[in-house]
Amino acid sequence: MTVDTAENLYIPTYDDVLAAHERVKPYIHRTPILTSRLLNELSGAELFFKCENLQKAGAFKVRGASNAVFGLSEEKAKKGVATHSSGNHALSLSYAAGRRGIPCHVVMPRTAPQVKKDAVRGYGGIITECEPSTSSREETFARIQAETGADFVHPYNDERVIAGQGTCAKEIIEDLGPLDAIVAPIGGGGMISGTCLTLSNISPETKIYAAEPEQADDAYQSFKQGKIIAYDAPKTIADGLLVPLKERTWHFVSRYVTDVLTASDEEIIEAMKLIWKRMKIVMEPSSAVPLATILKNRDVFAGKRVGVVITGGNVDLDKLPWNK
Amino acid sequence: MTVDTAENLYIPTYDDVLAAHERVKPYIHRTPILTSRLLNELSGAELFFKCENLQKAGAFKVRGASNAVFGLSEEKAKKGVATHSSGNHALSLSYAAGRRGIPCHVVMPRTAPQVKKDAVRGYGGIITECEPSTSSREETFARIQAETGADFVHPYNDERVIAGQGTCAKEIIEDLGPLDAIVAPIGGGGMISGTCLTLSNISPETKIYAAEPEQADDAYQSFKQGKIIAYDAPKTIADGLLVPLKERTWHFVSRYVTDVLTASDEEIIEAMKLIWKRMKIVMEPSSAVPLATILKNRDVFAGKRVGVVITGGNVDLDKLPWNK
Repeated sequence: MTVDTAENLYIPTYDDVLAAHERVKPYIHRTPILTSRLLNELSGAELFFKCENLQKAGAFKVRGASNAVFGLSEEKAKKGVATHSSGNHALSLSYAAGRRGIPCHVVMPRTAPQVKKDAVRGYGGIITECEPSTSSREETFARIQAETGADFVHPYNDERVIAGQGTCAKEIIEDLGPLDAIVAPIGGGGMISGTCLTLSNISPETKIYAAEPEQADDAYQSFKQGKIIAYDAPKTIADGLLVPLKERTWHFVSRYVTDVLTASDEEIIEAMKLIWKRMKIVMEPSSAVPLATILKNRDVFAGKRVGVVITGGNVDLDKLPWNK
Repeated sequence: MTVDTAENLYIPTYDDVLAAHERVKPYIHRTPILTSRLLNELSGAELFFKCENLQKAGAFKVRGASNAVFGLSEEKAKKGVATHSSGNHALSLSYAAGRRGIPCHVVMPRTAPQVKKDAVRGYGGIITECEPSTSSREETFARIQAETGADFVHPYNDERVIAGQGTCAKEIIEDLGPLDAIVAPIGGGGMISGTCLTLSNISPETKIYAAEPEQADDAYQSFKQGKIIAYDAPKTIADGLLVPLKERTWHFVSRYVTDVLTASDEEIIEAMKLIWKRMKIVMEPSSAVPLATILKNRDVFAGKRVGVVITGGNVDLDKLPWNK
C-alpha cells in the first residue's frame, strides 16, 4: 500500500492485487471470455467479453468482498462483517462470509424489493431493516456495528475491495495478452479503480474507458470538472450504477481513466437485449452500458482489440426491461 | 466408417469424430463448462454444464453442420447444401455454408414463425416456403434439390452430422477427465448418438442418459420397446425435441444408452428458470430437460460426477415460458 498524501488515504498497490488473487482464487470462478462475430461486425472492433455475470453470486463484487473477508485476522473475523447495500455487494459479502463461516450483517431499507431481501438471505446474510432515509440507515448501521463489532466493508471505497476488483483485469490480460482498451461500467468506481490499478502496472498502454448511464452521469461530470460530483437520487434502468465516486475511487479515476462515455437508457436496453439474444447470457442493465457506449462511439473503438467487462447477472427474470 | 450389416448403413467411427474435430475447429467455439454450487446442492451430484448455447449460431448443431459443409469436395460444395428444418439445424447449416461461401437452401413451411425465418436469413440461408404438410415439404425439397444439385444434410440421420456432434463429448472428457455419466437431451438423437460414439471409444465406463420431455417421449418408448416408435405431432415446450429417431441414431441409442429419463413440461420450465437465474445463461426449454430429469432422479446421480449438455440458446426473448 501507498499513501495518497493529498488525502492521507491508503491506496492499494499492484502487490495487493497479486495477494488478493491468491487469497480469493478458491472462492471465485475464473470466468470465461466470450466473443461474438455479430457484435464485432456491429462495432467494427474486436470485442472480448469478460463474463463476471457468470461469477459466484452473479457479480464481480465477489472478488473484492472475498478479499476483505479472507484477509481478516481470526480475531476480527469472528465478529463478522457488515455493510449497507441492497445490491450485488450485499450478496457477494454474504457469500464470502458464508464460505468463511462468519456472520454478515446487511442494513437494508424495509422498502427494498422482497426479491433482493430473499437473495441476501439466500446467501446467508443477516438483514437489519431501516427506514428508507440516510439518517435511519446511518443510525441503524452504527448500532449494528457497535453491537457486533463487525468489520465494515464498504461496497467500493475500501482498499481491500479495490485490490480485489483488480484481479478481474489481471485475468483479462493474462488470457488475452495486450489490449488496446478495456471498457467497464462505472457507478461508485470500484471495478474501474481495480482496472486502473492493474493496467497501470501490467499494461499501461491499454486505455481505460468508464461507461455510465446518461441519467446518472455523475462520474462523467466529475471527470470533466476535475472534482467529485454527486447526485441526490438519479434514476436509470442501470440501477447498479447510481452511487457516486468516493475519495479512493476518485484517486484512480482522476489519474488513469482515458474517458467517461455515456449512453441513454434506451441505448442501454437495446444493447442488453442484443447481448442476451446473440451471446446467450443473462446480464443486468448496468452490464450493458459498455456495449451501448461502444456502439455509439465506433470511431473510438473501430479496429481495436477491446476488453468489455460484463459486471453482473442479477436481474429479476419476471421484470425484464423489454417486457414492461 | 463401418457398415451396420443389419441395416446396411454407414455408421461413423471415432476416427470420423477426430477428423471432424480438426475440420470444424476454426468455425466453432470451444464452449466453456460451467458449474453451480446451488445446483450441486439441489441434485446431490457434481454437475458440469457444457454450454453449447454459447456455441456459434447458438447451438451444438453447428458442429455436425460444419463437418458436413467443410467435408464436401470443391465440386460438390459449389452446388451448396440443402435441408428442411425450421430450427437450430437450419441456422447452423446456413452459418457453416456462409463461412465456406456456398449457398444453403432451407425449405420451411410458410406458417413458420417470422422470427425463425428472419434468423435463418440472418445467417445467409435461402428460404423456399412450402405448405405446412409433409407432402408439400417433400415435393418442394425434391424440386429444390433437382434444380440446384445441393447436397442434402439431414438434421441428424447423417453420419457426417453424428460424427460432428461427437466432438462435444470429446471436449467434455478432454476438459474434465473421467465422468460417471453424461446427460443430454434427445429429439432425433444426433447429439446422443455423437455422445455414444465418442464415449464408447474414449470413456466406455461413462453412463449415457438421454433426457426427453414426457409429452414427446417417443425415444423413451422406443428404448423400452426395442424398436423405433414415432409420434405424429407431439406438443411440448421443448420444441427442439419433437422429431423421432431414425435408423442411424437408433443404431447408437439401442446399443449404448444406459437409460432414457423423462420430465414434464412444468418440470422443464422450472429447471429452465433455475438455470437462467442461477447460472446466468440464456438457453432453450429443450436444454433444460437434462437438469429436470436429474433433479427428479436424485438416486441415480447423487455423489456422481455428471456432464450435462446445454444444447442451445435460441429462444424468443419476447415469449419466455414464465411470462405467458
